[in-house]
Amino acid sequence: MDDPAFTLKNARVCIVGLGLMGGSLAMALKDQVAGISGIDVNPKSRDQAVAWGIAGQVSDDLKLAGKADLVVLATPVRTMIGQIGELAEILKPGATVVDLGSVKAPVVEAMNALPEGIGAVAGHPMCGKEVSGLEHADAALFHKARFVLCRTERTTLEARKIAGELVEAVGAELIEMGAVQHDRVAAGTSHLPYLLSAALVLTTGMQAAHDEAVWMLAASGFRDTSRLAGSDPAMMRDILLSNREKVLDRISQAQEQLSQIAELIASDDGDALLRLLCEAQNFRHEWEEKH
Amino acid sequence: MDDPAFTLKNARVCIVGLGLMGGSLAMALKDQVAGISGIDVNPKSRDQAVAWGIAGQVSDDLKLAGKADLVVLATPVRTMIGQIGELAEILKPGATVVDLGSVKAPVVEAMNALPEGIGAVAGHPMCGKEVSGLEHADAALFHKARFVLCRTERTTLEARKIAGELVEAVGAELIEMGAVQHDRVAAGTSHLPYLLSAALVLTTGMQAAHDEAVWMLAASGFRDTSRLAGSDPAMMRDILLSNREKVLDRISQAQEQLSQIAELIASDDGDALLRLLCEAQNFRHEWEEKH
Repeated sequence: MDDPAFTLKNARVCIVGLGLMGGSLAMALKDQVAGISGIDVNPKSRDQAVAWGIAGQVSDDLKLAGKADLVVLATPVRTMIGQIGELAEILKPGATVVDLGSVKAPVVEAMNALPEGIGAVAGHPMCGKEVSGLEHADAALFHKARFVLCRTERTTLEARKIAGELVEAVGAELIEMGAVQHDRVAAGTSHLPYLLSAALVLTTGMQAAHDEAVWMLAASGFRDTSRLAGSDPAMMRDILLSNREKVLDRISQAQEQLSQIAELIASDDGDALLRLLCEAQNFRHEWEEKH
Repeated sequence: MDDPAFTLKNARVCIVGLGLMGGSLAMALKDQVAGISGIDVNPKSRDQAVAWGIAGQVSDDLKLAGKADLVVLATPVRTMIGQIGELAEILKPGATVVDLGSVKAPVVEAMNALPEGIGAVAGHPMCGKEVSGLEHADAALFHKARFVLCRTERTTLEARKIAGELVEAVGAELIEMGAVQHDRVAAGTSHLPYLLSAALVLTTGMQAAHDEAVWMLAASGFRDTSRLAGSDPAMMRDILLSNREKVLDRISQAQEQLSQIAELIASDDGDALLRLLCEAQNFRHEWEEKH
């Protein structure tokens, strides 16, 4: 009954993009699949992946993906969308494509255009680091993280099964969700935090140019709030531009909140300010409870 | 030569406000001073401090401070300013007052009005937690933290000496700075991060009211960026209103940065957006190097 070609254990996996996410995935899957090959434009990453034994074969050419049963895309979102188009000509019939991108609607749209016979599921593991590159890869990165899967018009039973096995194999927790809902939620929980963090360091950095004491006094609160600003700028640019409308909505909401707070401070309205800050504290506690 | 009354080791210390900061200070100083008394309006905190052996005598009446050689104020900033006025009638001649408040200019002003014969140094240990109250107090809270001291018109040699001993005794690193400079810097490195964190949870919290998936998908990036929003709202209200102009300046700068980012996203200007995000990443790295 079971076709071994559709079991992760027997799959030849090709990972496209050997950065933090792709490298971590290779490490996590290494002993659980039939073989891993890797594609990356950076020769250092390819050499490193081979030296570490996390990829048996590497190339800078997407054609290598033609041998794989499962192709996992771990490149920046806009690069990935171009690669999905190219894969239409490269993939062998019955192969499955999964991605790890942070924006889902444009990926689902690109996957919908793949030829029938190719299985495709869009994915987003809710984890990361404020550093990038293969040197920071970590087999435990996905452990206990939520891993969103979004169905596409190419999500066959087999493709969905192997994507689910992938999520389980890396120790993540599967959540199924529509791409539009995912992107709306991620704009608030992931893209907005990054942008507020970036706005913080840009503001404080300009201040530091006039007063060296700024960096000295920036302590643990600053460290945590500014952590995401260290994220890979090219990856973040792709994410922000690929989720434009929803990100702009969230920025506008956050601006309104800041304006409201500023007005209460300016008018010395301590009671209303306290109520708003209590509401913020309550939301934070609500997240801690429900997360 | 040495007058034992002016050595921390021989000092009877009175801590006003037995919350996170005051309680942590009592724990850190416990075995390094002649005795600790505590003042707090909350009977539970007073009982707890006695039960834990971190205060020998407690009261809800500021008059207890009249017996002390060193009084440390650890109440919210606006409460503290009222208390400094009352202490003028209470303190014994030669006593020293130090505070732990996050805003320094209004505290220095209040201290300047103390009678001659009282020593006073304004202080700000750059540490904290996103939780408040004596139950979260921690003797190691000040360890390796920067501890700013600001001179006042009542900063005698003796007062400065005992304040320096206090900083050393809790394991912190002393930094001297003017109150105005401190407040300008803290608005950017401490008060703005809190406000961006609060704006984030207010924005995301409103989104969560329409979609339960929001809290589920908010992961480690959200956790760090939203951590400060859990801070004590009454303490933060006092800080924000006591540093009004400088805080409003920083909010306005951060709003401009957000608007600039939003414009680049709206106009799909990937190159300029990438440059700005790289600048943010560089500032974050600069802080890591210089901190």
